[in-house]
Amino acid sequence: MGERFERVAILGLGLMGASLGMALRAGSLTGTVAGYDAVARVAERARGRGAVDAAYATVGEAIAGAELVVLAAPVLALRELLAALAPHVAPNAVVTDVGSTKAQVVTWAEEMLPAPECFVGGHPMAGREQSGVEAADPSLYRACVWCLTPTRRTAEAALRRVEGLVTALDARPFILGPSQHDAAVTSISHLPLVAAAALTLTAAADRAWPDARILAAGGFRDTTRVASGDPRMARDICLTNTEPLVAGLDVYIARLQALRDRIAARDATLEAEFSGAQRAREAWLNA
Amino acid sequence: MGERFERVAILGLGLMGASLGMALRAGSLTGTVAGYDAVARVAERARGRGAVDAAYATVGEAIAGAELVVLAAPVLALRELLAALAPHVAPNAVVTDVGSTKAQVVTWAEEMLPAPECFVGGHPMAGREQSGVEAADPSLYRACVWCLTPTRRTAEAALRRVEGLVTALDARPFILGPSQHDAAVTSISHLPLVAAAALTLTAAADRAWPDARILAAGGFRDTTRVASGDPRMARDICLTNTEPLVAGLDVYIARLQALRDRIAARDATLEAEFSGAQRAREAWLNA
Repeated sequence: MGERFERVAILGLGLMGASLGMALRAGSLTGTVAGYDAVARVAERARGRGAVDAAYATVGEAIAGAELVVLAAPVLALRELLAALAPHVAPNAVVTDVGSTKAQVVTWAEEMLPAPECFVGGHPMAGREQSGVEAADPSLYRACVWCLTPTRRTAEAALRRVEGLVTALDARPFILGPSQHDAAVTSISHLPLVAAAALTLTAAADRAWPDARILAAGGFRDTTRVASGDPRMARDICLTNTEPLVAGLDVYIARLQALRDRIAARDATLEAEFSGAQRAREAWLNA
Repeated sequence: MGERFERVAILGLGLMGASLGMALRAGSLTGTVAGYDAVARVAERARGRGAVDAAYATVGEAIAGAELVVLAAPVLALRELLAALAPHVAPNAVVTDVGSTKAQVVTWAEEMLPAPECFVGGHPMAGREQSGVEAADPSLYRACVWCLTPTRRTAEAALRRVEGLVTALDARPFILGPSQHDAAVTSISHLPLVAAAALTLTAAADRAWPDARILAAGGFRDTTRVASGDPRMARDICLTNTEPLVAGLDVYIARLQALRDRIAARDATLEAEFSGAQRAREAWLNA
């Protein structure tokens, strides 16, 4: 199962990148982990936390000799990383990413990289509300589903190598197309993100907030948890998965409006909606 | 701090009532805990789990000799319990409840009880997504904020006794008016409940659900957690806190619609909304 790389470069050393570096080093899954971050002191902190063996000041230095390059940044920053990477990447190096949306990222990668067949889009379904290198955790990816989104152009060998990495990290590879990925994560990740941010802002702007903030407990904490995530990541999701997300929001808003109207009408049969939600969630948890 | 009652009756032995009985018995905070549930086998199971010393088949038997009567049922069922209680309750017995909404409950209690001054509305800000006696837990109320909603008619002595009970349970009494309570919990409890149910139904009805359900992870789990709660409790909240909840939903829907429009317009400045939500949530967590 184990896939060993002599040298891995991680570009972007926030929560996702630094956690990956820690996991690779803790499991001795790679000879050397080289790191780069656009913010030099983030790279230094990642080195200090043991997430990388060495931190470099440029993308070119970080990827020199790397068999595997992992891009770990909010989606719009991936475009800049790809541009910086393209002139320096070795022809046989495998390149992957851990970005939140895939259709846009894969399109950029296949346009910009000299060997598009060596790019494999990726997205581990793992995270936490804290962001940044300080929140990094070598167990972040353990047992998570890790999406891989090859296209017709992707080399089978590149896909197999990234799959091997995912398996070696004790995560579960799940292969699907880039647009299929984006459609699937819309309702279970992007919509919850917008819903949680809107809920937090609604509560905090309410005139009852001075009392409400004292009464708010586990329900509010959990329902809004993802609103504490990195705002740039959220913005980039909105800007690169726009159409599915807008369509999803339209469905969500229509459903809320229908519930609102039934509540206003004091319709006791709306218990069936809550029962349906309860059943759907239990079926998901039990699967 | 400790308030000791020789005999407490708990009417309704689901999650909230059975957890209360367990906590009272575990802390030796009362001589005897008598229990009643509209469903006889629920009362038997509560006794089997050690939540009550004895289970009775009627409200009248359960409350005989009780100095304190606690009503623990979804809000509409509280009306029936109050009706069953009124002919039997001792004139000096203190009556309280743990229902989700307060204005309607307090109105019913003050109309129906022979000694309205002995009623103190209550609402512990504690719960979990599992419902029923099986989910009961003696530590459910530990450290929670426990709302008490006296009115002009409430006797000071009754309020002090219930406050003493709350303190003895290691919970924190928080006194506010019934309508003030309902306004405060709308945005941090009732709105999250409707939002979570709508989100669960939206995701489960999406055509991408067969993939999405495999990818759904901690973010979806937490954002929808409260949708696994008791549907009857949710329905009764909608039917008894209707106007505040409808007004809250209108604000929430308008905010979602505004975000939706800015996403559709690919407005990069919407990052400020996510930053605002992040800051508001962090300020709440740190308080």
